[in-house]
Formats: sequence, structure tokens, C-alpha cells
Amino acid sequence: MSIFITGVAGFIGVNLAEVLLARDERVAGFDNFCRGSKANLAALLAHPRFSFAELDLDDLAAYRSALEELHRREPITEVWHLAANSDIPAGIADEQVDLRDTFMTTFNTLVLMRELGIGTLAFASSSAVYGDFGQLRLTEEHGPLEPISNYGAMKLASEAMISAALESHLGRALVFRFPNVIGVPATHGVIQDFIRKLKATPHRLEVLGNGTQQKSYLHVDELIEAMLLIRDRDPGKLCCYNVGADDEGITVRFIAETVRDRVAPAAEICYGEGNRGWVGDVPKFVYSIDKLKALGWRPRLGSAEAVRRAVEQIFEQESR
Amino acid sequence: MSIFITGVAGFIGVNLAEVLLARDERVAGFDNFCRGSKANLAALLAHPRFSFAELDLDDLAAYRSALEELHRREPITEVWHLAANSDIPAGIADEQVDLRDTFMTTFNTLVLMRELGIGTLAFASSSAVYGDFGQLRLTEEHGPLEPISNYGAMKLASEAMISAALESHLGRALVFRFPNVIGVPATHGVIQDFIRKLKATPHRLEVLGNGTQQKSYLHVDELIEAMLLIRDRDPGKLCCYNVGADDEGITVRFIAETVRDRVAPAAEICYGEGNRGWVGDVPKFVYSIDKLKALGWRPRLGSAEAVRRAVEQIFEQESR
Repeated sequence: MSIFITGVAGFIGVNLAEVLLARDERVAGFDNFCRGSKANLAALLAHPRFSFAELDLDDLAAYRSALEELHRREPITEVWHLAANSDIPAGIADEQVDLRDTFMTTFNTLVLMRELGIGTLAFASSSAVYGDFGQLRLTEEHGPLEPISNYGAMKLASEAMISAALESHLGRALVFRFPNVIGVPATHGVIQDFIRKLKATPHRLEVLGNGTQQKSYLHVDELIEAMLLIRDRDPGKLCCYNVGADDEGITVRFIAETVRDRVAPAAEICYGEGNRGWVGDVPKFVYSIDKLKALGWRPRLGSAEAVRRAVEQIFEQESR
Repeated sequence: MSIFITGVAGFIGVNLAEVLLARDERVAGFDNFCRGSKANLAALLAHPRFSFAELDLDDLAAYRSALEELHRREPITEVWHLAANSDIPAGIADEQVDLRDTFMTTFNTLVLMRELGIGTLAFASSSAVYGDFGQLRLTEEHGPLEPISNYGAMKLASEAMISAALESHLGRALVFRFPNVIGVPATHGVIQDFIRKLKATPHRLEVLGNGTQQKSYLHVDELIEAMLLIRDRDPGKLCCYNVGADDEGITVRFIAETVRDRVAPAAEICYGEGNRGWVGDVPKFVYSIDKLKALGWRPRLGSAEAVRRAVEQIFEQESR
């Protein structure tokens, strides 16, 4: 029996696989190294209960034959579908990116789960499904859903397909709507960007936008803990949860200053204009995690503490 | 200047094109005759302000070259995207059907609108985006959205892409969530099914399910009137409206009896079991059209009257 992870070489995939192995599970994963990396997998590949194949999930025939073989060898009890584009601006510049990497990977995963009779899917969705509602506190029941990026649109489209699959063949679905998740191995994101910029030009840090964008941040360790707890405690057929910090978030300015203080305390921070870093960036949102808290869990770190810890970890990663 | 309609040879496309031509517009349309038919277009093709090309919207290169040429000849001011799969059970049996005909047609239409700089999109969405919420009165702000068919999922996925496109290139979007729409030229649907069955076996009408499924029905003439009124009266950037009858709907039993009385009064009606006709069929829903009524419009026909009129019209169509 094994748990199968798509996008296993990505930031969240590596962390999830480590935790599952530590809980004595058998774990198998695919990745095309498009955003994940072979280096991220080094420790996992040495583990006797971990197996891996390099594979493009867009190629349904190759995906089918590899998954069939895996399922024959060690029956898959649940699928964690994490593979997706994670670069929102790239998906706005070219709509094919999120079609292929965010949407079709979900479509193909659902086709193969139907064919192989695998009943449980856990899906990495996103706060980006909501859109820009300013100060409104967003619960899982919020409507309308008006994503402002192709990434958000294709995550919502994936949720819609999963909902339909529950009516025909899928037994159970866990849908986790993530906020920004931080930690290591960092593959992208604002903290890594700022650290790299400051290492290149230690006297000056240029920030997109005026620094007032405010978001909540969750450390990846807490994300994994929350997802597994939801899986184990909510017996529902469709379990959709906001997963995030229990606060209103922190500003880009706070992140810039935290990175500056750690990496190059004398550097000047130069802000741009407007409160959006790029088209498709939601400037501020407030996220309700009441449903998750009702299960008896809350994050121990606030957004600020999660950022401080991640800055330490990513700085160390970037200094190796 | 012209208005461009995808799926123009389908049931709603033909009716929309006729009304627009009667309002002195220039109309162009594409269809692949997958569900629409050449016969439906006969009257339109004789009109000097109507132009048509047989085309598969899934073929982006062909779609691009035909639309570019059309736009050069007569600049397109708005796109009415009606092309979609309309056979919900077919889309559940094979998930490729709604991927190709409902989702990718929207994706490709948005790509070309961006490339050609066409600013306004009207989209035929569906009550199927909501899912099965029993007696709950569904408004446009309802959440969560939990479609139970691939058709509903791909309509919701299309709405999501349109929402994202508004943030990057699209100027304005009209999203119409239809209930069941009836009238002629009928291409599918319960009334046509019952009429054909009774013509084949005039003594007996077999009905899927127990006949208690309840839905509201809108006549196509009123649908077109409502959509054009929304376009003209709501100046919003994203205008999403439920369009439907102003009642709680009528049962399948009522439709069966109306058809029987018209076609073969002596026939026996035999019901099946359960309150769903097929997987993905929502047994009963209640639809709020308060937002539409606030614009000053309401349907003149109730669901029952719309069914009676459509039974007359489709019986005549099927007797030709």
C-alpha cells in the first residue's frame, strides 16, 4: 500500500513525503523537474520506502503506464495532487502554462484515478480561487468566486472537476486552499527573491509595488500538519478547507525589512508604485480558518514568526 | 461592425442570430455541426447581413485564421460564446467530451479575443455550476459551487477563466446562468425525447426516474430577450445573472403528461425509480432571478406555459 504524490520534487511535495515516511508510510511520487528539482529529492531517494519516476503528467499515455505499473506493484490508497504551475505572472503572460501544468495535470490525474479505481484525492488548491475582495473575511462558503489570475482560474477549474468526479467515481476529496506557504526547499517566492537580489546588490533592495500588499503566511511544517489532521479528523466526502495563519497577515514591507536585517542591514529598500506587485496579484485578503480551528488545530506560528523562520532557513539554503 | 456567435447553428445560436438580425445588426457565426445542424441555418444563410463558416473551435490554428479574416473584413464588437457540449450524460461517460467542447472552446475563444483585441464576451453558462443544494434558493452569490457533472464543472471552469481574463485583457463579460431552455429548433432534451418515444411506441411512454424531478424552464424567446436586456442595462464589467422562470419549476411528470395529452392521449406513462434521471442530473433546484428582476424584467411565461408552448412547437417540428 502506498501514497502517491504528484509534483513530489517541489517545495511542498518534498516536505509531505518526508513527513509521511516518518509516519511509516510507503510513498511514491512523480515529477518532471519543471519546477521541482533533483537536488530536492536527494535525501528521499535514499529512503527504502520511497520510489520515484521522472514523468510529465501532461503526457497521459506515459502517466497511465507508469501509474498502472506502480499501482500493480504497491496498491495506491490515496493520491496527493500537488503538481502545478507556481509562477502566477508566467501564467498570465502565457495562458498555456496554467492550462498545461495546473489544469491538465488535474484532469489527467482524475482520468487515471477513475481507470485504476483509486478512491481518495487530496488536492493543493489556493486562496487565489477567491479573487480580490479587499477586507472581506473569506470563508470556504464564500461566493462568488472571481479569480484574477489564470493560476487561480485553473485551481478553481480543478476544484470543479473534482466536485463532479465525486458524483461519478471518486470516493473522497480533500481540497486545501493554501495561502502563501514558506519554508525550504524554497523554489520561488518573495523571500527567496529578496535574498537573491540583496546578495547581488548588497546596498539596495528593489521592491515591486509600494510594499503595502498584505498576506498571511504559513510555514510548510504547519501546512503539512494541518492537511494530515484534516484528512484524519474530517470524515466528509468533500472536505474543503482554508489553511492559513490565524492573523490578518503581514506586509511586503515587513518581509523586505526582515530580509534586509538578516542579509545586508545597511541596504536601502526602494519601493515601486501601486499596491499590486504584478497583474493577478491580490493586494490584500483576509482569510477565515474557523473551519480548521473547529477541528481543534491552529497554527502555533503567526505570519510574522513564519516569515522570520523561513528567512533564516532560505538564507542558509542560498548560502550553501 | 459585427457580432460573432460561436455555436451559431445550435438551438440558442439560431434564435439569437435571428433576433440580432431583426435588430439590424450584422452577425457572423461558426459551428462544427457536431450538435447544431445545417438545416437550422437555412433561413439565416439567405440573409445578406449573416455570414457563416463551418469550423472546429478546438483547432486553434484554424479558428485563429478564420476569426482574423472575419475581424479584418468586419470588425467584431462582441463575441457570444454559445458553443458547448449539451449532452450531460455523454460528458460523464467520457470526460474528454466536455474538456474539448465545453472547456477548450472557451479557452481558445479567450486566447483569440486577447490576440485580436476584442473586448466584450457574452457567455452561456449554466445552473449546473451550482450543484445539488435541494430547496436552497440559489443566487448568483451562492457558495460553495459544487457541480456534479463534467458539463457543470467545465462551465464553472469557463467562468473562472473569463474572470481571470477580465483582469488582464478582457474589457467586459456577461455571464448568463441558464436553467433548462426550451423551444425550437430543438436538438435534444426531455420534450423532444418524449415526443420521439411516443411516436415510436404510441401506447406507452417510458420515463427515466420517478417523475418527481423538478426544474424551471424558460422559453428561448424570453431567454434571448433577457440576455440582450442585461447587456444593454447593466453597465458592469462582470455581469453574472441567473436567467430563468420566476417559479419553483415543474416536474418531469407534468412534462410527460403534457406531451402524452398532445401526442398520444391514450398512452400509458411508465416511471422508473429514483429522483435522478442520470448521474449528474440535479433532482430539484430553486433559482433566484431577483437580480434580473431588479433590472426591470421578468418572464411573461411560467415554466408550465413555456413547456406547453414548446411541446406544440417541437411536435410540429418533429411532424414535418
